[in-house]
Amino acid sequence: MAKKKTAKKVAQPARSDSSEKVKLTPRDKKTIGSLTNLADSVVSAAQKTRDPKLEIPTRSLSNVRYNKSQRILEMGKNTTARQLFNLNQAKSYMQTMLAASGCKRLVESGKTTSIRGLYYLMKHTIAGTKEETFSDQAESDPIIEDLEVLLNSLREELHLYAQQRGSMVGNIILNDKGDTIDCSRMGSGGYGIPSIVEEDVIQFVECGADFVLHVEKDTVWQRFNEDKFWKKHNCILTHGSGQPPRGVRRLLHRLNNELKLPIYCVFDNDPWGYYIYSVIKQGSINLAYESKRMAVPDAKFLGLCAVDYERCNLNPSVQIALNDTDRKRAKQIAKYPWFEHKKTWQKEIAKLLENGFKLEVEALISQGLSYVTEEYVPQRLEEQRWLD
Amino acid sequence: MAKKKTAKKVAQPARSDSSEKVKLTPRDKKTIGSLTNLADSVVSAAQKTRDPKLEIPTRSLSNVRYNKSQRILEMGKNTTARQLFNLNQAKSYMQTMLAASGCKRLVESGKTTSIRGLYYLMKHTIAGTKEETFSDQAESDPIIEDLEVLLNSLREELHLYAQQRGSMVGNIILNDKGDTIDCSRMGSGGYGIPSIVEEDVIQFVECGADFVLHVEKDTVWQRFNEDKFWKKHNCILTHGSGQPPRGVRRLLHRLNNELKLPIYCVFDNDPWGYYIYSVIKQGSINLAYESKRMAVPDAKFLGLCAVDYERCNLNPSVQIALNDTDRKRAKQIAKYPWFEHKKTWQKEIAKLLENGFKLEVEALISQGLSYVTEEYVPQRLEEQRWLD
Repeated sequence: MAKKKTAKKVAQPARSDSSEKVKLTPRDKKTIGSLTNLADSVVSAAQKTRDPKLEIPTRSLSNVRYNKSQRILEMGKNTTARQLFNLNQAKSYMQTMLAASGCKRLVESGKTTSIRGLYYLMKHTIAGTKEETFSDQAESDPIIEDLEVLLNSLREELHLYAQQRGSMVGNIILNDKGDTIDCSRMGSGGYGIPSIVEEDVIQFVECGADFVLHVEKDTVWQRFNEDKFWKKHNCILTHGSGQPPRGVRRLLHRLNNELKLPIYCVFDNDPWGYYIYSVIKQGSINLAYESKRMAVPDAKFLGLCAVDYERCNLNPSVQIALNDTDRKRAKQIAKYPWFEHKKTWQKEIAKLLENGFKLEVEALISQGLSYVTEEYVPQRLEEQRWLD
Repeated sequence: MAKKKTAKKVAQPARSDSSEKVKLTPRDKKTIGSLTNLADSVVSAAQKTRDPKLEIPTRSLSNVRYNKSQRILEMGKNTTARQLFNLNQAKSYMQTMLAASGCKRLVESGKTTSIRGLYYLMKHTIAGTKEETFSDQAESDPIIEDLEVLLNSLREELHLYAQQRGSMVGNIILNDKGDTIDCSRMGSGGYGIPSIVEEDVIQFVECGADFVLHVEKDTVWQRFNEDKFWKKHNCILTHGSGQPPRGVRRLLHRLNNELKLPIYCVFDNDPWGYYIYSVIKQGSINLAYESKRMAVPDAKFLGLCAVDYERCNLNPSVQIALNDTDRKRAKQIAKYPWFEHKKTWQKEIAKLLENGFKLEVEALISQGLSYVTEEYVPQRLEEQRWLD
């Protein structure tokens, strides 16, 4: 093995946030503008001797509605006032400003951190008191969400990243922070989908793929990658380790929206699989404000469907009995506005309940080691047999 | 964006396990040899009118010992008989043979699957009865482990993969199934560490790195990658999303063993962090037989240490109180044979208990956004201040 020559540098210790000059992107400048406006509003209220207050769009279920024409979840117009001179609101008012100031510091220094990192960045004991700014992360997370809706900025624009899990391979070349990533040459490991995939981080360079196959689990993804499914079917293959993290959802949205690639999903046949599909398709109820940048209303549910048990001639031993929670969840999901009036979905969920059992994608292995990659998925794609 | 030209192929449906001719690696041939010998032993016992039985190395704690000279966990010589003509053992005897036959099928077809996949592959109702071969995966997993020790084959050699989580960037070029992966050009996402990283899958092509920095969490890894720590310090940067999966541990072992790279670990200062370090260093007690191929006895614990609270001048608000389980776990870990006689570790664990609180790596952000990458780790590396 050859020794690769690399200049060895000694790091310069630095007390400041950054030792290098930061070049702000247009997105960063816009975010800093919003953050500065927020701060200015406090000053201007003070100058007018008015009480400083924020009008925060309400994030409760009552303020979430399903936009039928755009087929995504969105927030209504309700807002909640948060005032500095109100004993019940003063703490959360100050926490909101503290979070804004933390995010400004991140954006200005060209760095990102996790929501846990921001929590620690803001956490301190207020001088001269025993009062802490935040007692735990459960207190800071909703404040970050408030800030997102207040500024109409995605978390990623505030330089906050989520977990990084999920991988990609397939017929696409990306630019990731200056590095060219050819996803058709990523071996068995694949490219780790970053948490922040905004346009200034990830650019699509070349794409010859016809569609995206998104599978639920990394173990299923490994089967598809090993069989070079993406090569045979000229597609992109992704997974999100269960419920996909924000980076994966945003990337699917961009692949669908910018490159017009259809997104096909392969999940377990259980209420959790339906739910993950629903989140990818319409957005999450808790974070409805993100849907326009995250949801993929066109995503198709390729399987597994409740009828597959008979269609694929599976052995009774692969059945996993539904429990009470499963039945309850399935009935809730059947009432989601985007499933409620769809006969296909009503039939699917009714069949699951009638079956009385769940099915995992892995169960298809009983029909052949590569049945799922060589028959199940190709047949459904060819026959255009999916739920929408 | 340019459209990448790719020939579109239509997949050939195939009922057999593989439509392509399989080229077995030397490792595969060895594994098939062991599996065939196992089957032959049944035949030869029958021919000699002897009862077929297996002598399975005992995987209980009583048969695990710490090898002081090699500094790894290893199994003792105790075995347990498993007989076909014994009412208590017949089922597990047949399950063991079924697992062996499933693995042979995998190896011969050049495919791999998860332990859940193998479970489904083996699971069926025995003809003419209501008896199932396996009632759930909790029954098949220990059988797989039995097979590993019986054949002295790692799970990966039996073509079984584990979860894929963990990423890598840095100054190394690999070959992964024919694709060249330059880990210094992997952007913000990084290379997803595969579950199987044996020599016939992953070859090291060029490595200029001086060491490996392994961090516990993906969110901390993102901070180090964003600051291009691996470039400034000429190293490789890995994480394992908490307790590293087998692929990550095996890769660390290979980087240390074949490329002689020191492995430095950065974990939270809590019993869980100590435990993860212990697994990387000495192996896991449950799977002691893997240690010689997985453990890195030379791995160093760079931090966080209990004294860092004072050394780094952290704010009291970052403390997370130890609970009873933490205290119990810490005392257990202090008695591990590889920590028991080390003054540094005894002092470390005593200090944690005296502090009465845990510390997360993320807490260092209160000293500066990049304090951990620009001061904390570089200082410890320079001063060679670590626990061993």
